[in-house]
Amino acid sequence: MDSAPSSSTVSRTVILLLRVLTFVFLLIALILIAVTRVTEDTTDGPVEAKFTDIHAYRYMISTIIVGFVYNLMQMVLSIINVVSGKRVCGDFGYVFDFFGDKIMSYFLISGSAAGYGASEDLHTFFKAQDLPFNSFFAKANASASLLLVGFICNAIASIFTSFALPKKA
Amino acid sequence: MDSAPSSSTVSRTVILLLRVLTFVFLLIALILIAVTRVTEDTTDGPVEAKFTDIHAYRYMISTIIVGFVYNLMQMVLSIINVVSGKRVCGDFGYVFDFFGDKIMSYFLISGSAAGYGASEDLHTFFKAQDLPFNSFFAKANASASLLLVGFICNAIASIFTSFALPKKA
Repeated sequence: MDSAPSSSTVSRTVILLLRVLTFVFLLIALILIAVTRVTEDTTDGPVEAKFTDIHAYRYMISTIIVGFVYNLMQMVLSIINVVSGKRVCGDFGYVFDFFGDKIMSYFLISGSAAGYGASEDLHTFFKAQDLPFNSFFAKANASASLLLVGFICNAIASIFTSFALPKKA
Repeated sequence: MDSAPSSSTVSRTVILLLRVLTFVFLLIALILIAVTRVTEDTTDGPVEAKFTDIHAYRYMISTIIVGFVYNLMQMVLSIINVVSGKRVCGDFGYVFDFFGDKIMSYFLISGSAAGYGASEDLHTFFKAQDLPFNSFFAKANASASLLLVGFICNAIASIFTSFALPKKA
């Protein structure tokens, strides 16, 4: 047993920390987007807006859920690895981490970009109709921002798993 | 000199081919988005729409241009490498390729997702106003699709450059 931690132990700890951060940011993004319903008063009576009304936000929610489940599974696998003292699935685990993190990070940024892309221009059109829904779009943008931060954590983890793979494969 | 090509030569050829494909798809996407102006007749006279009117499409255009310039530069570097018979910048070139392709592929997919995200819901709102602009949104989606195909080529190149890096670094 070494007294100083090896570079592999350090990188595994950093990856686990990044996964916990991704998990937390996606959880907050999910709660924010799931609970919000905004009602705006108009001359024709109140109009309610919820996130499932807009296709881009539905896609954003699905990327958040998939990213959330993936990071939860990776965290459980990390704990099993630490407890058992060896990697589940052996070297295949490195291939899985590499492609998993790569695909997941593309997925997360596409959800965030779709959300921002829809918010920006839809908000302009809603304002032009005297139905600004400011707090609705502010919350959607907050959720897209949390998803973006989650993506950044996942992308950094993906750099570590890219470096880990070819040494083992 | 070997008579059979080495795995490094094969992967360099595949990467160059993928860069050429990315370059071609981004070029067509750029031409499509730059030349299109759609005019729709309304009761208040003709209304013209162009891509710069919508923020998400402006972002999409900027990702196309940045991706285009990056791939052009990488193609020029590849040709210099082939002609001179050695890598420009030595091993630093591998680090540059790894991070360059990774960041660029995130950039390209975010542009495509922002474009799709804006199109889908804006089109619904325009149709509700009897200003469908069908051909405008069809062309925007075609450009976003070409950008998505360009992203896929770039993401595959990124897998190759991820594998190439740690062997050298």
